[in-house]
Amino acid sequence: MKSLHVEFFKSVVGAENVYDDKAHLLAYSYDATKNHYEPDAVIFPRNEEEISKILTYCNENKIIITPRGAGSGFTGGALPADGGIILALEKHMNKILEIDMENLVAVVQPGVINMDLQRVVEAKGLFYPPDPASQDYSTLGGNVSENAGGMRAAKYGITKDFVMALRAVLPNGEVIRAGKRTIKDVAGYNVAGILIASEGTLAVITEITLKLLAKPKLSKSAMGVFPTVQKAMEAVFKTMASGVTPVAMEFLDNLSIRAVEQKFHKGLPVDAGAILITTVDGNLDEEIINQLEIIENSFFNNGCSEFKIAKDKEEENDLWFARRNASQSITIYGSKKLNEDITVPRSKLPALLEEVDKISKKYSVKIPCFGHTGDGNVHTNVMVNGSDEKELKAGHDAIVEVFKATVKLGGTLSGEHGIGLSKAPFMGLAFSDAEMELFRSIKRAFDPNNILNPSKMGL
Amino acid sequence: MKSLHVEFFKSVVGAENVYDDKAHLLAYSYDATKNHYEPDAVIFPRNEEEISKILTYCNENKIIITPRGAGSGFTGGALPADGGIILALEKHMNKILEIDMENLVAVVQPGVINMDLQRVVEAKGLFYPPDPASQDYSTLGGNVSENAGGMRAAKYGITKDFVMALRAVLPNGEVIRAGKRTIKDVAGYNVAGILIASEGTLAVITEITLKLLAKPKLSKSAMGVFPTVQKAMEAVFKTMASGVTPVAMEFLDNLSIRAVEQKFHKGLPVDAGAILITTVDGNLDEEIINQLEIIENSFFNNGCSEFKIAKDKEEENDLWFARRNASQSITIYGSKKLNEDITVPRSKLPALLEEVDKISKKYSVKIPCFGHTGDGNVHTNVMVNGSDEKELKAGHDAIVEVFKATVKLGGTLSGEHGIGLSKAPFMGLAFSDAEMELFRSIKRAFDPNNILNPSKMGL
Repeated sequence: MKSLHVEFFKSVVGAENVYDDKAHLLAYSYDATKNHYEPDAVIFPRNEEEISKILTYCNENKIIITPRGAGSGFTGGALPADGGIILALEKHMNKILEIDMENLVAVVQPGVINMDLQRVVEAKGLFYPPDPASQDYSTLGGNVSENAGGMRAAKYGITKDFVMALRAVLPNGEVIRAGKRTIKDVAGYNVAGILIASEGTLAVITEITLKLLAKPKLSKSAMGVFPTVQKAMEAVFKTMASGVTPVAMEFLDNLSIRAVEQKFHKGLPVDAGAILITTVDGNLDEEIINQLEIIENSFFNNGCSEFKIAKDKEEENDLWFARRNASQSITIYGSKKLNEDITVPRSKLPALLEEVDKISKKYSVKIPCFGHTGDGNVHTNVMVNGSDEKELKAGHDAIVEVFKATVKLGGTLSGEHGIGLSKAPFMGLAFSDAEMELFRSIKRAFDPNNILNPSKMGL
Repeated sequence: MKSLHVEFFKSVVGAENVYDDKAHLLAYSYDATKNHYEPDAVIFPRNEEEISKILTYCNENKIIITPRGAGSGFTGGALPADGGIILALEKHMNKILEIDMENLVAVVQPGVINMDLQRVVEAKGLFYPPDPASQDYSTLGGNVSENAGGMRAAKYGITKDFVMALRAVLPNGEVIRAGKRTIKDVAGYNVAGILIASEGTLAVITEITLKLLAKPKLSKSAMGVFPTVQKAMEAVFKTMASGVTPVAMEFLDNLSIRAVEQKFHKGLPVDAGAILITTVDGNLDEEIINQLEIIENSFFNNGCSEFKIAKDKEEENDLWFARRNASQSITIYGSKKLNEDITVPRSKLPALLEEVDKISKKYSVKIPCFGHTGDGNVHTNVMVNGSDEKELKAGHDAIVEVFKATVKLGGTLSGEHGIGLSKAPFMGLAFSDAEMELFRSIKRAFDPNNILNPSKMGL
């Protein structure tokens, strides 16, 4: 990067917040995809005003900017694919600014870690439901930019359902506010709505106002064992349609169950086609009992062979152990995991899992599946030997077929992870030319010089 | 309108669906604002393909289009302020296409009346919560375009919280899909999110996919009487923050109570500063009892002098009578109602009502208030003698001050009604130049020739 530019950035944020040494460039060149792209400089802005000055300058000088939270994304959203500067928000822009107990609202900077907010609000009897698997390290700015989901989405929805307002800096340096600390606000276009899930391509988010709930006082978990994955998937959508809305309704298929058992010897039902693990919550014992009864009945009506309710916290942890350790356990099937987060309408889950089985056989690759079936979101993991070129190709071909089957069933390429770089080549499977052209028009409306996180989302 | 254009439209939708006679132009020249703007033609398209052909033609010939549902909007969103054609969707595009019991989803055309959907889904044990006061005649297309709210927003949210996917025709005639029949979908920009509340300025919505809930089995209503409106407003936000989320938490101030009593003689507490009317719902008696206990305690801790729970349906109707008839009753205070739907964070309700009181005294106009305090939404009605120019001006000046007070308290110009023509002059009070310029950029991205509902939203 030209020293002229570096000097300008130092004059804005201080010399101690601008780096272009090899160590920093390397440290900020990767994310959870394990791909590498080196930026030309890494900048740690201290406030919105500095971000505004940096964007104004970059816009005038056509310098590319990639905003970055924790860099824990699975699709390369925070990777500087075209060089330029990394705007790293986790160092200074990481304050919880306000917990408004009167309106049940939190105001945070983008670099706040999801779990840090959860802990602070729960200590006050409040509740922030979105719980992506990365919750211990991913930032709320990243969560908003990717519209993160999680296990509790079945009942509580995803990040977008909790964003009330945003402050952001446009590529031209202008600061905008979008939304209000009110449930209702219909003045002007819903700019907050389009900034959510925009993967850092439209503006740099500088402040997030989130809706909080009162924390439910009680919760209980249960597990059901099913002979086949199809039966389990039918049980999922029929249970969800029966009038009960569990907080979570997660599943593991046979391959995932076997993997966890092989690694941890927990006495899991290794011959089961699938297990479902569910949690209900509420404020009264009667609510908990009632919900679990409905679920138990529905499970048994749909082929469940065993239903177990956790009696205490320890048993609950045991029930959830398999689900929590599925992701790391399935590595027994291959050194390289091609991990997708497709989502279909719940009633299409049986058909989806059938298609995945066919694809697995066709390409001779193992595809263990687990995930958030309560909202139709299945983590399909194509496992291959990463050093075997032929197998890797078969894996990638299998993924394309999984995407095609998903779209055919009315589903989406991504329920949680976003498009970024990884899924960009597949946008054409899901969107028409007119839809892609509209995306590009929206991008131009916000960022006419294309300086903000270009090359993402297949635009 | 040139006969050439009329002939083209007839060739697309059939002669029986194109009108440019005086009677039709007049019939489609008004909405609930009672303002009049005559269109040049009224067209009743029969399907999406016809809408696409009409938009393509209008875009090429720079003919202005105003999409219209029931014309029941309060801000002129459906008025053809600049002439051109009215695209009337209520005649043919009014089918409920699907009630998907497996995924709890409804698919409807834009001309379906809100209450018609509610009735159909409730007969199946399901529930569509958004209930604008216009629910008996307003269309779901209009509800989406204005992001309609209602009484049940305090617990269930507003229209945007139920829209899962849309089909729409862009001004260039291209058909796009936005969103999916899934809770999670993070592929591509959230185009559905920006079409909601865009007041027909970005695209013509042709199909709406809505989330449904299981219908709660039980509900119960109660009323609290308060000595002052400030006490009542404090009770509102403290109750909502105490861990209970009632379906509705509505209020009437003293002027509104007196107006209903004068008109209907129901034995209402005419000396009360305000009454709060609330409803809770759930599936178990224990839930209902528990919620009402929390509310009762919170009300009494905040100055409530009387709390009454409706014992049966009849008593419930009695409790709600005052709220349902407030709007028509307050006309005793003036022939012309300047009716606004400002919304503030709930904790600012006491301060807002105090400001309204001051403004009322300053301009010597009565401002009865009632509305959806559970979500901070207050219908402020400046009542004047419509034939008294001086009083009318005082009323309008008072409204400007109400807007200013609202914005100062972190609130919004509109919680439900949108901006349209009526509130367009006040956009500058709420939005910066940069924010207005961004709105215009978004408008241009969708509609470069500005043919779709121009002159709305102060753009």
